[in-house]
This record gives sequence, C-alpha cells and structure tokens, in this order.
Amino acid sequence: MVRLTGKHPFNAEAPLPLLLEQGFITPTPLHYVRNHGPVPKLSWETHRLIVEGLVEKPLDLSMDDIASLPYIEFPLTMVCAGNRRKEQNMIKQTIGFNWGPAAVSNAIWKGVRLRHVLELAGIKLDPTQPRYICFEGVDKLPNGFYGSSLPIEWVMNDANDIILAYGMNGEKLTPDHGFPIRTIFPGYIGGRTTKWLGKVVVSDKESNSYYHFRDNRVLPPEFDAERATKENIWYNPDYIIYKLNINSAIAAPAHDEKIMMSKLARNTEYTVKGYAYMGNGSKCIRVEISLDYGKTWLLAKMIQPEPEFPLVKARGMNPLPRFWCWTFWELSIPLHSLIRCEEISVRAWDSNQNTQPRDPTWNVMGMMNNCHYKVKVHPFVENEEFGLIFEHPTQPGTIPGGWMVKKEAPKKEAKVDEKSKTSAPSNAKTFTMSQVSKHNNEKDCWIVVANKVYDATSFLKAHPGGKTAILINAGTDVTEEFNDIHSEKAKAKLNEFYVGDLASDKKSKL
Amino acid sequence: MVRLTGKHPFNAEAPLPLLLEQGFITPTPLHYVRNHGPVPKLSWETHRLIVEGLVEKPLDLSMDDIASLPYIEFPLTMVCAGNRRKEQNMIKQTIGFNWGPAAVSNAIWKGVRLRHVLELAGIKLDPTQPRYICFEGVDKLPNGFYGSSLPIEWVMNDANDIILAYGMNGEKLTPDHGFPIRTIFPGYIGGRTTKWLGKVVVSDKESNSYYHFRDNRVLPPEFDAERATKENIWYNPDYIIYKLNINSAIAAPAHDEKIMMSKLARNTEYTVKGYAYMGNGSKCIRVEISLDYGKTWLLAKMIQPEPEFPLVKARGMNPLPRFWCWTFWELSIPLHSLIRCEEISVRAWDSNQNTQPRDPTWNVMGMMNNCHYKVKVHPFVENEEFGLIFEHPTQPGTIPGGWMVKKEAPKKEAKVDEKSKTSAPSNAKTFTMSQVSKHNNEKDCWIVVANKVYDATSFLKAHPGGKTAILINAGTDVTEEFNDIHSEKAKAKLNEFYVGDLASDKKSKL
Repeated sequence: MVRLTGKHPFNAEAPLPLLLEQGFITPTPLHYVRNHGPVPKLSWETHRLIVEGLVEKPLDLSMDDIASLPYIEFPLTMVCAGNRRKEQNMIKQTIGFNWGPAAVSNAIWKGVRLRHVLELAGIKLDPTQPRYICFEGVDKLPNGFYGSSLPIEWVMNDANDIILAYGMNGEKLTPDHGFPIRTIFPGYIGGRTTKWLGKVVVSDKESNSYYHFRDNRVLPPEFDAERATKENIWYNPDYIIYKLNINSAIAAPAHDEKIMMSKLARNTEYTVKGYAYMGNGSKCIRVEISLDYGKTWLLAKMIQPEPEFPLVKARGMNPLPRFWCWTFWELSIPLHSLIRCEEISVRAWDSNQNTQPRDPTWNVMGMMNNCHYKVKVHPFVENEEFGLIFEHPTQPGTIPGGWMVKKEAPKKEAKVDEKSKTSAPSNAKTFTMSQVSKHNNEKDCWIVVANKVYDATSFLKAHPGGKTAILINAGTDVTEEFNDIHSEKAKAKLNEFYVGDLASDKKSKL
Repeated sequence: MVRLTGKHPFNAEAPLPLLLEQGFITPTPLHYVRNHGPVPKLSWETHRLIVEGLVEKPLDLSMDDIASLPYIEFPLTMVCAGNRRKEQNMIKQTIGFNWGPAAVSNAIWKGVRLRHVLELAGIKLDPTQPRYICFEGVDKLPNGFYGSSLPIEWVMNDANDIILAYGMNGEKLTPDHGFPIRTIFPGYIGGRTTKWLGKVVVSDKESNSYYHFRDNRVLPPEFDAERATKENIWYNPDYIIYKLNINSAIAAPAHDEKIMMSKLARNTEYTVKGYAYMGNGSKCIRVEISLDYGKTWLLAKMIQPEPEFPLVKARGMNPLPRFWCWTFWELSIPLHSLIRCEEISVRAWDSNQNTQPRDPTWNVMGMMNNCHYKVKVHPFVENEEFGLIFEHPTQPGTIPGGWMVKKEAPKKEAKVDEKSKTSAPSNAKTFTMSQVSKHNNEKDCWIVVANKVYDATSFLKAHPGGKTAILINAGTDVTEEFNDIHSEKAKAKLNEFYVGDLASDKKSKL
C-alpha cells in the first residue's frame, strides 16, 4: 500500500494495477484506508451503541445484540472524496493530501439496516420539523468526534441499503475499517460515513460535528482557503458532498509501462483497462476511450458482475436499478493504433445521461476530481529499438512521476529549503540530530525540515492535522513528509518556529 | 410559439427570451408542446381510466372519480429529451427535428398520486418477479398507442411525486397537454410520460409500446440509424432515457442582440441570464459563466423560488432535498468585460457534484444534448459606430441563424432542389398546382417539393412520421417543411415517388 500522510495518521491506497488485478472484490488488506487520527482500540465484548435523541425508547446495544438482528450483506464500492486529488494538487496545492486514483475499493459489507434499528427505538416524528439521523464516532480527533448526518428519508428507504456494518469481506471489521461497527452508505462518499460508531442520535438538526460541516465540501474554483473563511463560504449548505459523482480511470497501460518495437511489429492487440463508478445507485451505461484527444470515442466493453453476484441476487428480485459497485471496463485495440497516439483518455456515462467533464475544476479542498483520466503516450528509443512508454497524470503520495507533475523545482514555490528566507545569519544556532532528538514530547517538541530546526511545541494544539501527527515525529527529521503534504501557506508559517540549523555533518538529503 | 414540424403534428417552443420573461411559472400558452400525431378529442364526462393487469381489483374510473381522490399540486419543470437538438443536427443530421433551447417549461400540475390509485386496485406482488406500471394513451399513432412504463418502486415512493394529473396551472389540461388526464413524472424526460391516458396496467414486463422502446434513447456516437438496426442496438436496455441530465442555457444576451458603443462607453453593467435544470430531484448547487473559453469561471447568482413556493411548502416540511423545478441564474458583469470577449458559456453543477460536458456528443436520435451552451460575441460597425452582436448556436425550427449553422449550402447535402438527380428529361410530365391539388386524399396523395411533383400514396403507411403528416398536406407545396425536417436519406428516398415537374408559371420559391 502507498502511504499518503507519512507515518501517521494511516492513509493509504493500493497501486492501481494491483488493485484491479484483485478483481471485483478487493481483499481487505488492499482496500484503501482513510483515517483522520489514531485508530481507536475497541472491543467487541465491551463496545456499546447508543441510540438516542428524538426517539420513544433510547437503546443501549451490545455488539451481540446488533449481530442478532436481521442483516443484509452485499458488495459496494466505497470511494474517498479525495480520490484523484493529486492531479488537482499539481495544478495548485489544495489543503488536502495526495490521493492517487486508487482511493476506491469494493468490499462485501454485512450489517443491520439502520431503518430497523431506528424502528426499534421508535422515532418521534413531527410534521412541522425535519429529522436527521446523526452519527458520532468514538475516535478522538483535534476537532472533536468524527460525525455526520443524513436526512431521515434517505435512511428509512430500504432501497438505499443504509446499514450499520460489522462485517467486511466475511470477517469482523479490522480496526482501520472501523471495528467493531460503522455506518455504510452505498453511493455516498466514504467521508460521509462514520467508523468506530458510538452513537446514533435522532435530531431536528444536522450533525454539528466539525467533520460534517467543515470537511468534504466542494467550493467554487475562485475560493482559496483565506477567501472562503473571509466570505464565510465554508458552511454554504449547497457545497456539502453526499453522493459520489461519475468517475473513471485507466489502469492498463500502467504508468511507465513500455511496449517495444518487437511487440508492436507483431501487430497483436492491446487491451486498455480500468474502472468506472457512479453515485446515487445509477448504472454505468457506457464507457468510451479516445485515442485522439476526444475527437472520436470507441465503445469499451463493460464488466458488471454486480447484478449476478450471489449476494445481490439473494437480496431479492427487484427491478429497481440501483448499482452500488464499480464497473470494470476494457477495450482491445490493434497495437498499431497506439503507434501515433499521443493520449488515451476515458469517460463514463451514467443512466441519467450525465457524464464526466473533460477538464479538471480546481477546488481548494481538492475534492471530487472527476475529469477525463488521460494517459500520455511517448515514443522513445532504447538500445536502438523504438518503443512507447505510458505516463499517467500523477503517482500517488510521494511517488514521483506523472505528466501533471512539474519537472523543475518552481521558483515561486515556498518549498522550505536551505535558501528560504530564514537562512541563518552567520550567528545562527546549530544543533546536532542527537540534540534535536531529545526534544521529543508534548511539552518540548522539535522537528527538522530541510536542515532547519523548528520548535513546534506552541503549535501542537493549533495544528490542523492534529497534535499526534507532529508528536509521533517529535525529535526527528520530517523533511520529505512535510514538504509533500503541506500547502505553501503552511510552509511559510513554519518559519515562525525556527530555532536554528542542523549541524552540517548531519544534513538531510533534500 | 415557434412551430417545429410544420402544420402537423403540432410541436412548438416559445422563443427563449420570451419564455424566461414569464418567470418561474410558464403560462400554458407558452409551455412547449410535443405531439407525435393528432390530438385526441376527449371529454371529461365520458373518458374512463382503466387500471388492470396484476391487480386484485381492476378499476374503471371516471374523471369525477379521479378528481374526488386526495390530490397534490406542485410546480415542476418538464423537458423534452430533444431539447437543444438543433445543435446536434448542425453537426450531422439526426433523425429528430429541430428543437431549440426552449423545449423546457415549468407549470403547476395537480393530480392524484399514482401510488394511491394502485393501492385502490391492490397490486398483486410476487417476490420472484419484477413489477412494472405500464401506461397507454388513447392516441392513435402510426406505431400503435403512445405508452411507457416505470419500475414499481419509483411509482410507490411518494418522494418521487408521481401523479396522474388533470390540472395544469389551475385549469383542466388543454388538449395539447393531454386533456383530460396524463402521467406526470417529476425529474424525468417529458417523453416518458403519457398524455390522454387511457390505461394503467400492472405487469411483470416493461411496456411493449413502440414509443417506450424505440423512442427516447441515447445511442453511442458511432451508430447511425442503419448500423444501429443492423447490430440490433436500438433495444439495448442501457440506452433508454428516463431522467433528465444536467442542462443550462443563456437567454440574455439574446440571439442578434446588439450593444452599441454609446452604451459600452457608459460602462454600466450587463446582466447575463438563463436557466438550468437537473434530473432526479437533484438540486442545482452552482452555475458558472465563462468569458474566456472555460479558462476561468465566474459564479452566477441562482434564483431558486421552489423551496419557498407556497404549494411546495404546503406539501409539508421535509428535508428530503428533491428539486423538480428549474433554476434561473444571472450574473452582472461590467460591460467592458464583453468588449474583447469572444464567447460566453455557461455550466451548471448538481448536488451530486456532476456537471455538464464541455463539448457535444452527437447521437443518432439527437437526444439529451447538454454540453456547455455557448454564445459567440462579434464586433461590428454600423454607421461608423462600434458595436457587439451576440450569436446563439442555433435558432429553433426553421428560423435561420446561429454560429453552428453552416453558412453556405453544403454541396454534398441531398437537398431536394431543381438540380437533383431527377431533373426532368425534356419529355418529363408537367402539372399545374391546380392539377396537383386534386390529388389530395388517402387513395391519391400528391405533394410538391422544390417544383417537383411526387405521388406519395404508396408511402403513406410507411412514413415514419405517420400518414396524417402527409395527408394534411396532400395536394400542396411542402418544400420548406420537407427540406427542414427530413434527413438526407429521406430526401433521397423521395425520388422514388417522382411523377413530374411543376409547370413553370407556378414554381415555388426555394
């Protein structure tokens, strides 16, 4: 798995070709993981789920209670709203980290319908008031509990398959995936769900969790973080993300894959492959590939096992066309089609006749990036043999490469390096790594970035990523992780905490 | 209203600026009309609605019976799947006629929930079988009754507001709009609904109406009509259109609108305006305007009266965000922004974070065209005064103009004219109009196109548009209508029926 936020928190995706090789169901170890903080250590035997609020009869359930209720089990594709974000970061740094195109996975989830649990509690309805079902996780994050909410109608409609899940791919949940219980909302972004679920609260208001309101939004492209705050745009209810949009990506050819003349000359076929997904239960009705920048489109073959998947069939004959799982697609083309091809792109269509936009629309959180996925095709010569090499837009996390990645270090970028404005005057203090490493706790926390030493102690509470993300690295050199994750604004802010330089015999590699 | 298919059948749209001037609710006379054939003449007192099929108790209801049932009444935007089709026809002729961008209107509809009527009949459910609700109109069309079907779950879910409507804008339905009763499916294309409703049939199969299966589909761009038939693509269930996709258009500046220097020099503001709509009950969350071919986008102000509309509020407090009505949008820009502007384009986003594609994707039926709507801005000089003139992509029907319309008569186009292959040999028969006009009935039907006379009698039954469309013009000159509606293939076929030339003193204007 490719780690995207350093040692902690754990956020990771599988390399895309490996992900697709697994087929329709993603094995749990390769399922993408999104954590905002430390993973709670909970126990099946002691964990309780509270159901309270505007209900007749509050509930206090054990995991065994929950597991004894009628359940459903079915595959569904989960996606992080930040999928393909690195492409946006290459246009301009967003405030989010570098997901590649594999923040998507398909697993079998088992759980009780939330509708059923709420009926046990008995919801107090009121025709003059809305009802929201609010969720609270037990994880402790910098901005309070992780939580979210849904309007009651979405929850009570069995067609939406909204469950409290305690089984994944036939096993109990792993800690990273929310053990022992989490919400599952088919067709929604992963971030709208809550892992390590502690409470379900029926309310006449939406969730007041910071993560419900402040995270998982798409702002119009003209807003950077400062302007959004200044003009109070963050909380515009129109900008919240619930459901997935249409998206697709190319897995084969893979990044850096080569086809040499000896193969091209045989003029066999090449099979372009990838995935597509929709939100809202819509069916993927068409996937097309272009080899000429979108002038013409070729119809790909879709591989859609979902309707025939045994668990889906077992859920009951139902013409209601709701599709929760990804579509794999492939198109076999004569190899010679690639010889003069400069770009392979893909687009998918849903059953509402909506499709993907051709170009990206940058947004400050880097969410929901779903423009056409484009792989560049370059000629090269190796040992006097002609070949083609394929270049994806980016590679996930800190992995280098990709045609959207700027090749030379941009002059204006506030990359913290030896030449930054806090270049030491000749009387700057210097420290050895050994000395730095002693400043390694919450009351005294130093870090090294690009051979400069910073005292981050006073910033621990204010750190948007939480104090743990820094503490876990206290007293160490975090150059690589720091530069890859943080915005220019954050990099500039770091200067406030400068205390000295790293002694020259211990300089880190840039 | 702009007529789009000649005298008959009656298909028409309002000029777009006039449509938007009406505001949120479109007065019935300006509501677009789509008819496939003659309008049935029905009576409130004698019309019956039959409900039969897999039901416990078939129903035979009078209009008074229906009007006595509990009803709901609310505004909704209806759209023809062919909206903006002329833009596609300008790329390549489709098999459909030239709708402009005003095949969309918003009216207040009143009716009984179909769910309620079906409950009166009592649906015979079967967990091993699907259930479809099929609709049959009483209109007599070349290919049988107009009809369609929906999966039962969509019908039974009150959130979808599916009704049998008998009131429009506070009055009984007009004949063109389906008097006395029709189906209304909010968020769906107009063509999925059935006017002059005669029967509701509960079935385990979809409707077998020709118009359910053969019409209202989007095929992949590589298929023309012949190839679609040859490869049996018409009936691919994935290509059926149910719900609307995201669309928007610019109403101001209007086509051929001018702004002269005297106004530009005052440097006041100009307000760009238009509409947007979504399908599926999604909310329009954002509309943006570009003045630079999509490099940058400006946020427009959205005018969305729907949630506060009295009838919508009366439907009951409900946080479920379903939006059935169009959004008007506007953006005030300094006039000087337009001086060097070459193109104004608009795009809208829905609450699923989906948006419109930038470019059109041609399809043989010319359906669901929803690429960015683009207005060109041209400089010109009149009486030595500089000005700007705005050009829309097309004008509806036979109205000339639009930047997508080819300026010169294309050489290859099989426009039937005096130079076509059936140019008379010198011994060709000639007829006067007076003589032609005697051949004016079903057993003897002549028409004149471009000064040539054709005996259409043997073609009446096979005419895709129905025999009435020809019969209503029997014995007359139909040059203009014929050339504007028919494909190149149809124009070529006409030659088969040539019988002679129009005598020269009665030549029609080309």
